[in-house]
Amino acid sequence: MVSKNQIKLITSLVQKKYRKQHGLFIAEGVKVINELIKSNFELEHLYITKPLFFGVSEKIKTLVTDSELKKISALTMSNDCLAVFKIPNERKIKTDGLIVALDDVRDPGNLGTIIRLCDWFGIEQLICSEQTVDLYNPKVVQATMGSISRVNVSYVDLSDTLINLELPIFGTFMDGENIYKTKLPSNGVIVLGNEANGISSEIEKIATHKIAIPRFGNLQLTESLNVATATAIVLSEFKRAT
Amino acid sequence: MVSKNQIKLITSLVQKKYRKQHGLFIAEGVKVINELIKSNFELEHLYITKPLFFGVSEKIKTLVTDSELKKISALTMSNDCLAVFKIPNERKIKTDGLIVALDDVRDPGNLGTIIRLCDWFGIEQLICSEQTVDLYNPKVVQATMGSISRVNVSYVDLSDTLINLELPIFGTFMDGENIYKTKLPSNGVIVLGNEANGISSEIEKIATHKIAIPRFGNLQLTESLNVATATAIVLSEFKRAT
Repeated sequence: MVSKNQIKLITSLVQKKYRKQHGLFIAEGVKVINELIKSNFELEHLYITKPLFFGVSEKIKTLVTDSELKKISALTMSNDCLAVFKIPNERKIKTDGLIVALDDVRDPGNLGTIIRLCDWFGIEQLICSEQTVDLYNPKVVQATMGSISRVNVSYVDLSDTLINLELPIFGTFMDGENIYKTKLPSNGVIVLGNEANGISSEIEKIATHKIAIPRFGNLQLTESLNVATATAIVLSEFKRAT
Repeated sequence: MVSKNQIKLITSLVQKKYRKQHGLFIAEGVKVINELIKSNFELEHLYITKPLFFGVSEKIKTLVTDSELKKISALTMSNDCLAVFKIPNERKIKTDGLIVALDDVRDPGNLGTIIRLCDWFGIEQLICSEQTVDLYNPKVVQATMGSISRVNVSYVDLSDTLINLELPIFGTFMDGENIYKTKLPSNGVIVLGNEANGISSEIEKIATHKIAIPRFGNLQLTESLNVATATAIVLSEFKRAT
């Protein structure tokens, strides 16, 4: 059974303010929870609708009904388990190899997909502007499918941080140089911008290289690619030559 | 004002069965609706919360309140307008150039993103298995951001159709040949599979080329890329050489 206080605490964790206050976040579904446990995220409590996670101490497990789980779930389709984890301390930024930087990406699905792409392409560091959607938002945690544990995500003053890194900075712009014809290095920062507005003028000023994914269809259109699919193409281009 | 019957009709259109029965689908938001009007989709009716679409006859416009719009909207965040369009007749499959084929893609967001990618990369024909999510699902229409009007989408018996096309068939598999090292033609079919199960064994049998996007990160992991991001990378690879 879940107590009223537990329900209150867990449902509060959909808000960043309360995640910060309690230092906790939630994850749902066996796959994602397992990945987080394996990666040494500190498990605070597990809510399960059937016997699961045999390696976990019974002291931090609560058996709940489907309707109780639905009450605490942050997803439209609730799973058969929900876990509360401690938010770990932020780690130092890794400056080797390629780094991805996000300038105000707001959609949780996009951030989650980008983390999964970083994991696929062996990119260990993601730097986010402070206005980028929070990593521990339940929809982000879900969309990462466990990759959250393998990519170091840092929230920073993006402009200051990028200047201090002293690395080449590649920004994606509609009018940049054709990425297929650009020599791409194996270290540097790749900046992706906000869904509606792209890269801010502040970051544009410090970009050392402007690149673009050419459009092959109707050339008059101004509609851009979705930021997660643009990230997929850009990362593939950077890595294919290595 | 919206009548009870109109509300009943419009809200029924979130279900494929009723879209088929009435031959109608809905689209929301100025941008998407404008693209559909420009592309000669036949507009049945417009519901607007303020004066919009000045070129459209007043006879098929209804001014509604925000709360009325919310009642008929299929989206969590309703917009300031909703349109009901006629579903056009399916057009003949175009067999020139590259064709994308989807083997049971179920997620509306994925289908919408893939249509947008086809539009970006100048791919005019998308072939879907009958189990693929319906093109006129409101979430698909929304995710295409208007591209729905520029890509010809056909629902067919995928296996039969692919065999009859007599084109090279490229399937994406975890154990396929490194796509970065494969010679890719400028005509042929690229098949992407279901989110959970990939390409079915039926289609695997008729694939003439098995390709894969190499993983650069943790090589033990079996988790695949999301189908929309995989499509982005594969289409970029096929088109970059042209």
